[in-house]
Order: sequence, then C-alpha cells, then structure tokens
Amino acid sequence: MDLARYLATRRRTIEQALDRCFPAERRMLRRAVRYSLLAGGKRLRPVLTLAAGELAGARQRELLPFACALELVHTYSLVHDDLPAMDDDDLRRGRPTSHKVFGEGIAILVGDALLSEAFGLMSSARRVPAERVVAAIGELARAAGETGMVGGQALDLAGQGGRATVARVRDIHERKTGALFTAAVRIGGVVAGAPAPLLARLTRYGRALGLAFQVVDDIQDADPNGTGDGRTDQALDKMTYPALLGMARARAHAVQARDQALAAVAPLGAEAEPLRAIVTAVVAGVLPEESAA
Amino acid sequence: MDLARYLATRRRTIEQALDRCFPAERRMLRRAVRYSLLAGGKRLRPVLTLAAGELAGARQRELLPFACALELVHTYSLVHDDLPAMDDDDLRRGRPTSHKVFGEGIAILVGDALLSEAFGLMSSARRVPAERVVAAIGELARAAGETGMVGGQALDLAGQGGRATVARVRDIHERKTGALFTAAVRIGGVVAGAPAPLLARLTRYGRALGLAFQVVDDIQDADPNGTGDGRTDQALDKMTYPALLGMARARAHAVQARDQALAAVAPLGAEAEPLRAIVTAVVAGVLPEESAA
Repeated sequence: MDLARYLATRRRTIEQALDRCFPAERRMLRRAVRYSLLAGGKRLRPVLTLAAGELAGARQRELLPFACALELVHTYSLVHDDLPAMDDDDLRRGRPTSHKVFGEGIAILVGDALLSEAFGLMSSARRVPAERVVAAIGELARAAGETGMVGGQALDLAGQGGRATVARVRDIHERKTGALFTAAVRIGGVVAGAPAPLLARLTRYGRALGLAFQVVDDIQDADPNGTGDGRTDQALDKMTYPALLGMARARAHAVQARDQALAAVAPLGAEAEPLRAIVTAVVAGVLPEESAA
Repeated sequence: MDLARYLATRRRTIEQALDRCFPAERRMLRRAVRYSLLAGGKRLRPVLTLAAGELAGARQRELLPFACALELVHTYSLVHDDLPAMDDDDLRRGRPTSHKVFGEGIAILVGDALLSEAFGLMSSARRVPAERVVAAIGELARAAGETGMVGGQALDLAGQGGRATVARVRDIHERKTGALFTAAVRIGGVVAGAPAPLLARLTRYGRALGLAFQVVDDIQDADPNGTGDGRTDQALDKMTYPALLGMARARAHAVQARDQALAAVAPLGAEAEPLRAIVTAVVAGVLPEESAA
C-alpha cells in the first residue's frame, strides 16, 4: 500500500478537525493552545485511531472526535513535560517551547485546557452510541492518568539517579508512551463496537507498536546519523534501550516488537494493511513525515 | 433544617469515597495526590452535587462518583493555581502547598492526575445510564476547560496590571469559580435525569451561589475579623468586589445573589431545603466547617 498517501489524506482530515476544535482567536490562551496543537507533528496517534476504527467497521466521521482527543492529550503531555520543573526543554519540533514563548503559567494552562477539552470533545460525539463514548473516555482517562502517562512521568522524575534496568525502562515507557498508543488503537475499536477478540488483537498491536516506537526513538536520539555505532559516552541517557542493551540488541528488540505487532493483526486481512505498514515504517525509521500534500 | 448535621453526614460519605479513589500507597505521586485531596476543606461542590441530585430524584450512591469528580477537579485547580508560575502560594489550608512539599514537577503531575481521574471516575459510574454519564462529563469538561476555570485563570494571569472593573472581575470569577459551582448542581440534575425546567432552576441557583460565594470570599479576605471597615490600603487586591464597590455595596451584592439563588429554587418545596440552607449560610459567613462528626 502507499503509506505516504494514506497518511497524507488522514493527516489533512485531522489537521482540519484540530483547527476547528480551537478556532483562531485573539486571546493569549487560545493563541498558545494553537501554537502547540497546530505545530505539525506526525499525528501518529489519531491516525492509529482512524486506522483501527475503520478496520473494525466505524466511519471516519464517527472516529474523528476520538482521534482528535488522542492528539490533544499527546500535545498536553508534551507541553507539560517540556516545563522547567519537568524535562526543561527549550525547543520542540525546532521551535521554542510553549513556556519559552508564553511563560510558564500559560504553558501549564495550555496543557490543562487541552486535557479538559479532550474529554469535552469525546462527550460531544453525537454519532456514536453513549455506551461506546463512555468506554472510550474511560480508556483515555486511564491512559492519561496515574496508571498511565502521568504515573510514568512521575516515575521518571522520581527515579532520576536511580539504577537503570531494562525492566525499569520498560515500565516507565509502557506508561509514558505505550499506554497512549494502546489507547489510540483500542479506542478506534471501542468506537466501532469491536468484539472482544478483535479488541484483544488491537491491544497486543498497540502495546508492541508503543514499545517498538520507543526503542526506535531512543536509537535515533543516540545515533541520529544512523552510522550504526551510536554514542556510548557519558552524555547518553542511561534510561534508554541502547544505553542498556547496546545498539545491536536494541535494534533486535525493536524488530521483535514489530513482529509481535504484525502477528497480532496477521489474521485481519487487507483491512489491517495500514496498521502493518505503520509499524513496519516506524521500525525501519522511515515513517513518512508531514508533507505539503 | 440542621445544616451542620446535613453537611457532616455527607462530608463523611465524600471523604470515604475520595479515600477509595486513591488508596494509600508508597509511591511519591500517590502520596502527593492524597496530601492535597485529603487535606480537609468544605467539600462544598460535591455536597452540592448530592443535594441537587437527591432533590431531582437520584440516589446518593448513583451521585457519588460525580460528586467526587467535582472535588478532584476543584483540588487539581488549587494545586495548579498555587504554583510559582501562577499565584505562587506557599500555604493552603494552613499547610505548605504541594509544590513546597513535593517539588513543582510532582505538583504539576498531581493536578494532571486528578483532572484525568475525574473523567475516569465518571466513566466508571455503572449505576447511571450512559447518556447521562456522557452529559455529565460534557458539563464538567466545559466547566474545567478554556470556557471555564482554565480560561478564567488565563484572563487573571494576562490581566494583572490591567484596569479592574466590576464587569471584568465578574467575568473572571464566573469562569474561575462560578462555572464549577454551576456544574456541581447541574451534574446532580443531569445524573438524576432532571427535566429541562428543573435543570434551568438549578443552573440559576448555581450561578447565583457561585457569585455570592466569591463576593463573600473577597469580603472575608479583605476584612478577616469582620470589623466592618476592611482594608482599603494598597495591599488590597484591586480585582475584588470590596475593592471595586466598597465593603457595604459588596455585602449588598452578596445578599442580592443569595436572594436570586433562593428565588430560583423557591417553588421546589422541602426537597430544596439543603440548597436554601447552604446559600444562606454562605452569605451569612457561617457555613459550618469540617467537624469531627
């Protein structure tokens, strides 16, 4: 399949829907929300919600509020994680981070507004039976909260300086990254009313994809030029797969996770082709970036 | 009616339910969540959800997850508002604020966890039809988000130094305080399946109560000993009703709001007695505090 084209059409739909969630306005908070939300990005999580939901029989317009909610939660987590009290990052996607432009107070509120609106958006989905809306909200709340992203970030903050082990890194990443990937595909299935066996397959796919994504992300951070040897010096964050396993075994880890994801959706036929193409491209490090298309 | 007794029994129920939401655990994030959530407080918003919902025919056990969600959102907003980048407060209810005890990073995550869990908790309410759960979630998301509390706090942050007018103060307070009071009573009604005319009455009550609460809060801040003259010096925040109207007119403002709240629920009979007693006590400045009962 033509993954670049598949992603381009879905990204365009998602961009337009996100723009409609927060139309341009003069107030500083709105400008700050738009600055972070409409800053490009791969839109991988909302694309996964659309891909999993369409595979399970839902229509794109039924799925769209949920797909956007995933991106709102992802963006909120980036804005809060970049804060000085957290990871203290000055740049995000090549631009100054929210708190650098608007100040820390507004950046905190941008995250709070995005997180609140994610749930507001899902609650406004009129095309989907209320039972499914409630289930999707529960999925996203668990992925975002103490059992998911927030809990992972807290472990990360608390553990700085602690001993790094593969089990520990995996636990943190499963919460920080994996939970939202898994929620993205599961919510697609939930909105479509997928039966339990299909939901179980989507869950296994989401978990494996989340792991593969994180390992590849760590590898690309450690070895940005793909020379193959990577950095093994002190500057390399200990809490990463390459630091703990070495570059070659980290790569093998990502490939193994990809194969688990592919196995999970293997019996699902041609409809699952986008999910296969996405995990394959993620692990090959060739997921098409945003295009002008 | 015996308001002190009414509040004591409901507060006990709410305290127990909040404790069950986040059982004691060793991890720092959980300890920090409990530190802020179980720090006492009037529990006025969840009590209002119970009072409005019972008046509209729901049972307490149906209402309880929603009542707790209101308190989670209220607590999250206090923790974030206290941060150095916001109001920079060192004390809250006589104890060091969350970021003073656990650090800014964890305090930000405490708020994020509480906000996420508020929606998770509502989505888990199994005793209430899904349509009502979705409607209640929408109410709380709007009250919390850019149109409500977050928007009010952003206006407050952005407006520091701007000209204070009654209209401006009222706009900010309607978002920062009023929206959540209104949501508290409306959500009670929504969970009970209240018909539109009753919901409209609850809405008018909630708005008027929110205004009365804020004016009285401003008065008590400006004149903590109730001597009647209050502070008119430079230290008095300009963005308050006493600063803009003078103490006597601010009091008249609160009394007028109380009368509007009472008028809204006047035809609702004996079932509305708790709502009447609450707004009356708030404006008299004699709302019973937490007791050991």
